[in-house]
Amino acid sequence: MTKERLYIFDTTLRDGAQTAGIEFSLEDKLSIIGLLERIGVDYVEGGYPGANPVDTELFSKSRTKSATFTAFGMTKRAGRSVENDPGVQGLINSAAPATCFVAKAWDHQVELALSSTTDEHLQGLAETVRIAVDNGKEVLIDLEHFFDGYKANRDYALRCAEVALEAGARWVVLCDTNGGTMPGEISEIVSEVCSRVPGDHLGIHAHNDTGQAIANSLAAVEAGVRQVQGTLNGIGERCGNADLITLVPTLVLKSRYADRFELGITSEQLARFTQISRAFDDRLNRAPARQSPYVGASAFATKAGIHASALAKDFSTYEHVEPESVGNVRSIMVSQQAGKSNLLTALARHGIAMDKNDPRLERLLETVKERESRGYSYDGADASFCLLAHEVMGTLPVYFDVESYRASVERRHNARGELVTVTEAVVKIRVGEELLMSVAEGNGPINALDTAMRKDLGKYSHQIEDLELVDFKVRILNGGTGAVTRVLVESRDGTGERWFTIGVSPNIIDASFEALYESISYKLLKTEAAQATTAAE
Amino acid sequence: MTKERLYIFDTTLRDGAQTAGIEFSLEDKLSIIGLLERIGVDYVEGGYPGANPVDTELFSKSRTKSATFTAFGMTKRAGRSVENDPGVQGLINSAAPATCFVAKAWDHQVELALSSTTDEHLQGLAETVRIAVDNGKEVLIDLEHFFDGYKANRDYALRCAEVALEAGARWVVLCDTNGGTMPGEISEIVSEVCSRVPGDHLGIHAHNDTGQAIANSLAAVEAGVRQVQGTLNGIGERCGNADLITLVPTLVLKSRYADRFELGITSEQLARFTQISRAFDDRLNRAPARQSPYVGASAFATKAGIHASALAKDFSTYEHVEPESVGNVRSIMVSQQAGKSNLLTALARHGIAMDKNDPRLERLLETVKERESRGYSYDGADASFCLLAHEVMGTLPVYFDVESYRASVERRHNARGELVTVTEAVVKIRVGEELLMSVAEGNGPINALDTAMRKDLGKYSHQIEDLELVDFKVRILNGGTGAVTRVLVESRDGTGERWFTIGVSPNIIDASFEALYESISYKLLKTEAAQATTAAE
Repeated sequence: MTKERLYIFDTTLRDGAQTAGIEFSLEDKLSIIGLLERIGVDYVEGGYPGANPVDTELFSKSRTKSATFTAFGMTKRAGRSVENDPGVQGLINSAAPATCFVAKAWDHQVELALSSTTDEHLQGLAETVRIAVDNGKEVLIDLEHFFDGYKANRDYALRCAEVALEAGARWVVLCDTNGGTMPGEISEIVSEVCSRVPGDHLGIHAHNDTGQAIANSLAAVEAGVRQVQGTLNGIGERCGNADLITLVPTLVLKSRYADRFELGITSEQLARFTQISRAFDDRLNRAPARQSPYVGASAFATKAGIHASALAKDFSTYEHVEPESVGNVRSIMVSQQAGKSNLLTALARHGIAMDKNDPRLERLLETVKERESRGYSYDGADASFCLLAHEVMGTLPVYFDVESYRASVERRHNARGELVTVTEAVVKIRVGEELLMSVAEGNGPINALDTAMRKDLGKYSHQIEDLELVDFKVRILNGGTGAVTRVLVESRDGTGERWFTIGVSPNIIDASFEALYESISYKLLKTEAAQATTAAE
Repeated sequence: MTKERLYIFDTTLRDGAQTAGIEFSLEDKLSIIGLLERIGVDYVEGGYPGANPVDTELFSKSRTKSATFTAFGMTKRAGRSVENDPGVQGLINSAAPATCFVAKAWDHQVELALSSTTDEHLQGLAETVRIAVDNGKEVLIDLEHFFDGYKANRDYALRCAEVALEAGARWVVLCDTNGGTMPGEISEIVSEVCSRVPGDHLGIHAHNDTGQAIANSLAAVEAGVRQVQGTLNGIGERCGNADLITLVPTLVLKSRYADRFELGITSEQLARFTQISRAFDDRLNRAPARQSPYVGASAFATKAGIHASALAKDFSTYEHVEPESVGNVRSIMVSQQAGKSNLLTALARHGIAMDKNDPRLERLLETVKERESRGYSYDGADASFCLLAHEVMGTLPVYFDVESYRASVERRHNARGELVTVTEAVVKIRVGEELLMSVAEGNGPINALDTAMRKDLGKYSHQIEDLELVDFKVRILNGGTGAVTRVLVESRDGTGERWFTIGVSPNIIDASFEALYESISYKLLKTEAAQATTAAE
């Protein structure tokens, strides 16, 4: 039987940007597009060009390699022509090959929110689709409030879908905008819609207001839609959108769907889901949810003794899929083996080959576990892991030692009575036989320390000239008196490579300094490796 | 039409206790039983008497007033009589009027995990039910792995249910033990089971391994079961159980269920759900999830300007139920797109009444926009917004002024050659005519500044005694040289109220200090308001 193609549409950067407390910079958006391409979604909706400077800049270029980059915006406003609607024109002129226009499928909303009529709205919808298609765009129409609209005025809701498709839209997306529709209703309504318009032109956009965004999406797929929308880790307005990190593994791994549908996501890409989900939380500066389906730290963790021993006999007992399929690990005592094979994979990524019986592997595993129990997390700090591995293997050169440092911040009134802040740092570094001492000011203690440390690294100074600190994140672990601070530093150099280092300490300055020190060490290590390769060639 | 009774069974204290990282004391269990009784669940499963001292002590008395207190344990072991099985005898002798025995409905598991035969297991099941019924217990049978078992050996799984009911069990609970069953499968299998045994004797116990515990529970109810199991906030092994805090509001508020079923939970009890959910998180010492359906802080929060203005016209636009029905509140966030109507709603929440034509409203709007363009974000910092509003209105008292401060961190080798870090802060504060100077050490510069600032606030010192810093988050905005640091501080006091304040500056110390200063100011402001109310009464 030929499988039908099911398309995955990601709206992390658009609907996800509506999440309370989340505001994406251009840097964030570019990095998240990188994550999305690593898992192979079909569409990446980047935002709303024209609505804010970040999105306007984002859509000045095409930003994806394999996914279809998609811009979002409104259909033509009532009372003006498409040619004179700056919103529509902005979308047509964006660098994205696909455009998603939002229209209202609930008659009541058209009158209430747009102060327009349904006829005028349908006509605007058709004109918008046509001009975008004429300008070479792949067009999607988000039908807002589709399910509530369908219950209130079935004919108008259906007409919206038909008009959009007749005008040339590739997709009509049925949105459960306020998130209150039950899976049974989704199933009934989508079945009826599919008797009028072809399901392979329909998508589903579900919200999680009753905790059923996943179930609603699957119900729609079973009833006929062929595009599913969602976000990384289910972020989004109110209770969030359908979580693609949960939904995609279900579609790929469960025979109920796998037997019928084909996705553009390979099993190699699926095996990155755990890593991508955690990297995304890192970018949001929040702790990954332990109980997340498939990718959470507890998703394959077993506490009960009776369960653990049954697991040892047969994993299917308490696991519905294999943790490795999504890049997660089983977490019980017998997982030592799984731990080792994980480590070997991570080491190989850094070009370190090690035999699985090498006693240093056991030592590295213990060191990682001990450090993670103290608050380190190597999931998001690959460069620090690489340094740690070299250290345990005895192959980490000591480039330089920091003898001592001091940072001070003083806020006071200056001679003119203005409040000023003066920040200063002093660092003493030993490079070989040399003792180097540097002082620097900065716009904060960490910036001052970073500047002072890099000011004079003796013979290594020229090697770190292109090293740049891109981002710096702080998280407090185990709130209260026993709290430690975890600092994650993102660095970049002239080659375009980015790397992450981590520092943990009760003191934010010590934690930051550790992460900065490791960033420089990693840069020196990789420069040395590159030179060795060049010399050998 | 007479409605059918649907029973809610809570297993927070039994299955929930399997959650990684959760361990309940007797004190915890008694307090949680109190929470459960306030929302009116029908059954409270307290634990496994005999398995550990806490549960044995818990079951020495009856612990509930209205709910049916239930003990959990295993059916008779193979190779001994019920009279000689200490587990079964322990359950019969517990003070709980109901007992839930677990049996295995998957033939493969009986052989693998119990090293028994299906015939022997069925016989043990029947004998266990009979002796418990003879001793006056209401008996429930948890059929572990029911759905996987049904797919593997339909007859044996069904036979388990029939044997339990024939022997006198009140309920047979169908468990999706490894959590991998899809709602469509639940629906199909439960429908078939209901053609063989009466649905009003069946329950559903779903796990969230594919994010569908809620949908699976509802699918089972639609197909015929009349008891639903779950936990507070969905805690439980791996990805958790069905979240009763999400499930019950859906059953009560959605006509698809409300029209057919009657629960033992009143609308007064439903209106406590937000409070109970948060109180439970407090007991677990964790921050409530903002995106939780119905009860999360974001569940009825709207960020987008376009949505907010539509909401003001008609709440049904972006809300599927009324927030008040579950004790939650609507929250129109003050953000970039803030309009005046947003601001008025936000002000009202802080008890500030303002006319929409008041010129100070325009000034506040401009101030918010100007500050957000510099990196402030009032979405997540309600207390800072409240202070800002009072400041713009000219109603913010100046409790104290900070004249100057200084923080220093020094890392060096001590006399014994060990690396040590010494952190110190000095703060000069003016309270009225008094100039107060304090010095403190800390485990970081921010902790030292916080300690020094609170050490002596003159006449305000006693008012901030119960103020506690709960969390501290740092974010760098616009990476690179133009970067500013945003610090978000979460505070709590003896009343249990939590509030968020924000600070923004290129210097992390200044930003942190600003957020700490605002946290103290907010605490003083709210204490004053509370005193004014008390005085007026």
